[in-house]
Amino acid sequence: MLTITTFDWVPEMARGYVRDLRVRWACEEAGLDYRVDTVPSVSRTPGHLARQPFHQVPMLRDGDLSLFETGAILLHLAEKSDALMPESTRAEVTQWVISALNTVELWALPWLVARFFEKDEAAATKASVLMNERLRQMNAVLEGRDWLVADRFTAADIIMADVLRPVHDLGALADFPAAAAYVTRATARPAFGKAHADQLAHFEAAAPPASLAAS
Amino acid sequence: MLTITTFDWVPEMARGYVRDLRVRWACEEAGLDYRVDTVPSVSRTPGHLARQPFHQVPMLRDGDLSLFETGAILLHLAEKSDALMPESTRAEVTQWVISALNTVELWALPWLVARFFEKDEAAATKASVLMNERLRQMNAVLEGRDWLVADRFTAADIIMADVLRPVHDLGALADFPAAAAYVTRATARPAFGKAHADQLAHFEAAAPPASLAAS
Repeated sequence: MLTITTFDWVPEMARGYVRDLRVRWACEEAGLDYRVDTVPSVSRTPGHLARQPFHQVPMLRDGDLSLFETGAILLHLAEKSDALMPESTRAEVTQWVISALNTVELWALPWLVARFFEKDEAAATKASVLMNERLRQMNAVLEGRDWLVADRFTAADIIMADVLRPVHDLGALADFPAAAAYVTRATARPAFGKAHADQLAHFEAAAPPASLAAS
Repeated sequence: MLTITTFDWVPEMARGYVRDLRVRWACEEAGLDYRVDTVPSVSRTPGHLARQPFHQVPMLRDGDLSLFETGAILLHLAEKSDALMPESTRAEVTQWVISALNTVELWALPWLVARFFEKDEAAATKASVLMNERLRQMNAVLEGRDWLVADRFTAADIIMADVLRPVHDLGALADFPAAAAYVTRATARPAFGKAHADQLAHFEAAAPPASLAAS
């Protein structure tokens, strides 16, 4: 049995975007059984830090193995299932997982921070220049194919589509129709729908931390 | 025989920092034979784009496989050699490779761009807040160990040390002595010295592109 660890609670604007969604999605695609447990999001704990030196989520437990970093967790799960990584595609799946995280998200996240969290339009405009160059290149890739590896859905598409999803949701893929269509195609999959609904339900059922509820 | 593809020429300030160094370093650690070829850096070509949709380097050829993204290339090479990835540590090596690229470099690169390329001190100061939080956390990790995985040097250390190296070289690890000592320890390895010297020699031997030489 796998255990995915996420936060006990997050503010409403983060719901649907916490990265445990990527791990839930992968498990749903592969039919892997899992349960979900939590660490506190507001009063972060030494126990959390001992497993995750950056105090982030998600983490995965698989027997004795405790793993963090969504990309590494997905590549680990992919070893278990052809649904996530067809035979002999490990190098190519890894290539696109890392492209999503180090080439696309690297320039999308500073834009997201400026635009969404800091509401700093000048900084967002500046950040969008580097981001848009990557989006233009990804759009060109996706004009030629539905999925990134082996003409079929793989773990690489979970990460890439979920890196592009908040950009899409904020309207910034308007000039990149193949990338927008890719996000729509990926998130139409039943496994995404289940993972997304389960994450929303998890956070909706959570009580806000006492320190916030009192304020 | 492996072929590492890098640029034909880069300006002096980039020499010693082009990411083919990470791949050369890995090959030197593992004793893997390789040759180096090039793509033009100034007039980027359709042939380059066909192999690397983001027009970056390095790329690796290994038989019929053409691979990009330094992290993916290193994880691919690591499958060939215990020197890069001891048995049964794939998940943990992958975790730290991705931490370096998506958790540390993700916040270090915007700082590097502001500080080094744009000389924008206000933007650099702002970017340093998020970067320093990650550096503080990495420093805490490195207070407890010399290397990231299995108490010995692995491919994860190539990526993490090389992500931290330009930060160190610009003086920004002064408050993070364990991280600074880690960079010093990693770059003291003969395989790094060979890879670094070879990259410098490669670019020193290169003629600048005609379009630049004429200006």
